[in-house]
Amino acid sequence: MAEKVTPREVDYSRWYTDVVLQAKLADYSPVKGAMVIRPNGYAIWEMIQSNLDKMFKDSGHVNAYFPLLIPESFMKKEAEHVEGFAPECAVVTHGGGQELEEKLYIRPTSETMIWSMYKKWIMSYRDLPILINQWANVMRWELRTRLFLRTSEFLWQEGHTAHETYEEAEEESLKLLEIYRTFSEEFLAIPVIKGKKSDSEKFAGALHTYCIEAMMQDRKALQAGTSHHLGQNFAKAFDVQFQDREGKLNYVWATSWGVSTRLIGALIMTHSDDRGVVIPPRVAQRPVVIVPIWRGDDQKKVVLDYADSVYKELKTQHNVIFDDRDQYKPGYKFADWELQGIPIRLEIGPKDVENNQMVMVRRDTLEKKNVNREGILERVTSELELMQKELLERARNFQNENTFEIDNYDRFKDVIAKDGGFIKSHWCGSPECEAKVKNDTKATLRCIPFDQKKESGKCIVCGKDSDGRVIFAKAY
Amino acid sequence: MAEKVTPREVDYSRWYTDVVLQAKLADYSPVKGAMVIRPNGYAIWEMIQSNLDKMFKDSGHVNAYFPLLIPESFMKKEAEHVEGFAPECAVVTHGGGQELEEKLYIRPTSETMIWSMYKKWIMSYRDLPILINQWANVMRWELRTRLFLRTSEFLWQEGHTAHETYEEAEEESLKLLEIYRTFSEEFLAIPVIKGKKSDSEKFAGALHTYCIEAMMQDRKALQAGTSHHLGQNFAKAFDVQFQDREGKLNYVWATSWGVSTRLIGALIMTHSDDRGVVIPPRVAQRPVVIVPIWRGDDQKKVVLDYADSVYKELKTQHNVIFDDRDQYKPGYKFADWELQGIPIRLEIGPKDVENNQMVMVRRDTLEKKNVNREGILERVTSELELMQKELLERARNFQNENTFEIDNYDRFKDVIAKDGGFIKSHWCGSPECEAKVKNDTKATLRCIPFDQKKESGKCIVCGKDSDGRVIFAKAY
Repeated sequence: MAEKVTPREVDYSRWYTDVVLQAKLADYSPVKGAMVIRPNGYAIWEMIQSNLDKMFKDSGHVNAYFPLLIPESFMKKEAEHVEGFAPECAVVTHGGGQELEEKLYIRPTSETMIWSMYKKWIMSYRDLPILINQWANVMRWELRTRLFLRTSEFLWQEGHTAHETYEEAEEESLKLLEIYRTFSEEFLAIPVIKGKKSDSEKFAGALHTYCIEAMMQDRKALQAGTSHHLGQNFAKAFDVQFQDREGKLNYVWATSWGVSTRLIGALIMTHSDDRGVVIPPRVAQRPVVIVPIWRGDDQKKVVLDYADSVYKELKTQHNVIFDDRDQYKPGYKFADWELQGIPIRLEIGPKDVENNQMVMVRRDTLEKKNVNREGILERVTSELELMQKELLERARNFQNENTFEIDNYDRFKDVIAKDGGFIKSHWCGSPECEAKVKNDTKATLRCIPFDQKKESGKCIVCGKDSDGRVIFAKAY
Repeated sequence: MAEKVTPREVDYSRWYTDVVLQAKLADYSPVKGAMVIRPNGYAIWEMIQSNLDKMFKDSGHVNAYFPLLIPESFMKKEAEHVEGFAPECAVVTHGGGQELEEKLYIRPTSETMIWSMYKKWIMSYRDLPILINQWANVMRWELRTRLFLRTSEFLWQEGHTAHETYEEAEEESLKLLEIYRTFSEEFLAIPVIKGKKSDSEKFAGALHTYCIEAMMQDRKALQAGTSHHLGQNFAKAFDVQFQDREGKLNYVWATSWGVSTRLIGALIMTHSDDRGVVIPPRVAQRPVVIVPIWRGDDQKKVVLDYADSVYKELKTQHNVIFDDRDQYKPGYKFADWELQGIPIRLEIGPKDVENNQMVMVRRDTLEKKNVNREGILERVTSELELMQKELLERARNFQNENTFEIDNYDRFKDVIAKDGGFIKSHWCGSPECEAKVKNDTKATLRCIPFDQKKESGKCIVCGKDSDGRVIFAKAY
């Protein structure tokens, strides 16, 4: 609290790091590229986990746990997969004091391990579908890391499903993408664009990859979740065949999908301000703080009694902090809870007790309102709901205001360089034009949006025919 | 289901493995020593996690997450610790295609990593206590492994707390042991003995270790949880000092405590039988299954309608399985759900519909009872509670019946060899006598029980004076 958060205007990147460190969401660890998720940050992850897990279970998925270490030979079974992941793996060469016969990779993702098990479990169509999810840590060696957004080790969930047909796998991958969209918008209050990745951006080993893309406050894109249709690639690599309904042997169809602790970074970058983090109420483990204000013992007793009755009433429905610490002044407390992002603060002083009211301050607007003691539970509950809704609206407006349709490549380069944002432009579909954009501007093709309008146009790079716009942006 | 569980009488060890594999609780993975926790097994872990986590939070603890990989130099900072753990570590030597400058150990436990962070976070007594817990995977290289009981990688929680005084740390370690006892008895229905480990059995780096010890059906002991008072050992190793209330610098006092997926093995070995696993209702994610029985379409409609109304009523309070699968016969279904350990099965046939009743079968007793349709929700709820209570009572009786006070070393050796069980004998306190018992009988000193009676006696080995009995047993 002695330090001060660097304002976004001054240095957006330093602002982000300041917020994460000072709000005690995370800290650097002594191991390069690995972070410590501190209790304030982990509480957000727990809210993400419990709510997403419920959505997974409600749609028929179950959880399991597969080993951390994957034999090198497994990684090599799917050609694209090993090419994509092996270079960024951490490798175990010794165990129990002995050199190992075969190197083991710390999982960068678990397709290979899981499909080696599905080989044992799947015989017939009666064993399908398998709808398994795993909450786990994974590791992808990174040189340039950033708290939450890019770390060598991160926490995530990875779903791995097995199906009888292409269509079923396709339906599953789209169903999960919709779960991710719903979760992102309704819980994290982060509006996202649903779309398909271009071939050069798809998952190593997938037929195609779907994604949700969000826009941060610096107008850069952030991929917030992906869902892959893996086709029969992993079934073929691990020889997983099943007897189908006609009695014939057939390779199993697969999907995989995941979101990670990166979402916490997305949440911070979407909503927070120069005073610290702003947490949407539905993922705030502690949505309300009461700060009693007094001078001297007479006031203290009156104020604390009154505040305590408010606390008890709110406690029936919300996880409330009662900040009656003696050693800190009210101003310090206000700033401290703002830094940590508690959605609603209630300030109660002697005058408030007299008038049977209190002051309510919302973290996002910082607006102060006098509210009556009577009906305070309903008032706080509805304000939390309103805040949740308004955070999403504000972020959606911001995204819309910073999304541009551009048909001229010079203008495209200019906007990317100066303003950023999402640029909707025509694209001929060739990887060469996609690569040229990246080389020229550092912007990447974020996705081919599902809501793409059919519209004739010319590729922004080469001028060839195109029948719809795709989204380009610089990205995290 | 085509296979058959080996009866306990024939081969206890094979029985255990059969139950775990056939009930689909876990499976062997292609990596030696690592297991896959399948959805049925993971569901038990989720129930353990959610209930224990609530107990931790209710007693003021918060969760966080620390890195998987620990630098070799950190492991070496606490002399006893490195000696105890380094030989069983998996070692990462390469990352991102490069050989690392310093080897990284996959955490066998996180004291060293966490205390290197506490060094950054603790300045003054105002920063204390820190009451952090972590849910994580850890790895201890094992040659002889056993599903759930001993695997190279396992899941656990590890609490790591920091305190101002010896007394506070002592209080914390005892508080956690009591939480473990409560959880073990009230949720897992496993009765345990609370006690202190002898010096040769304590945690590498601890002042002393407390434990809870359970008795399996083969009368072997299983350590179900430990809580360590770490003294100032790790604070000194990582130079973590704080300014105390008198303004003086002082080393911080520490505890750590953990339980693991081993508890699932303990649960299976305590309650299960030759038909499969028995799961205590409070940790059964799906405590009730309804099996409708019919012949022909006329019966089918009547029975399914009736069963569905029962399902809907029970569903308001319990997670119920409705097994209306067409392709399997009732007998197959009964055996399948018994194997998987669903606590209560309701069988509903056409005669039951006529008589407005159904048949209730409890998994542990396998007793069949006719029960009325009216009041079925209350009936099922109270039967689940009764089952929970009776499982604990039965296990406690078994433990008592197999606990012996023995004062003659020949008899001691004889009982250990033939019957097993917990043997309460006098011990002089010397590590030599403890080691002799282990060499002679393979039994180890499980604990010095908290409820030890003050009683003069002679050491079972050397005959020297002793003032209380300790517990010896063969153990997992």
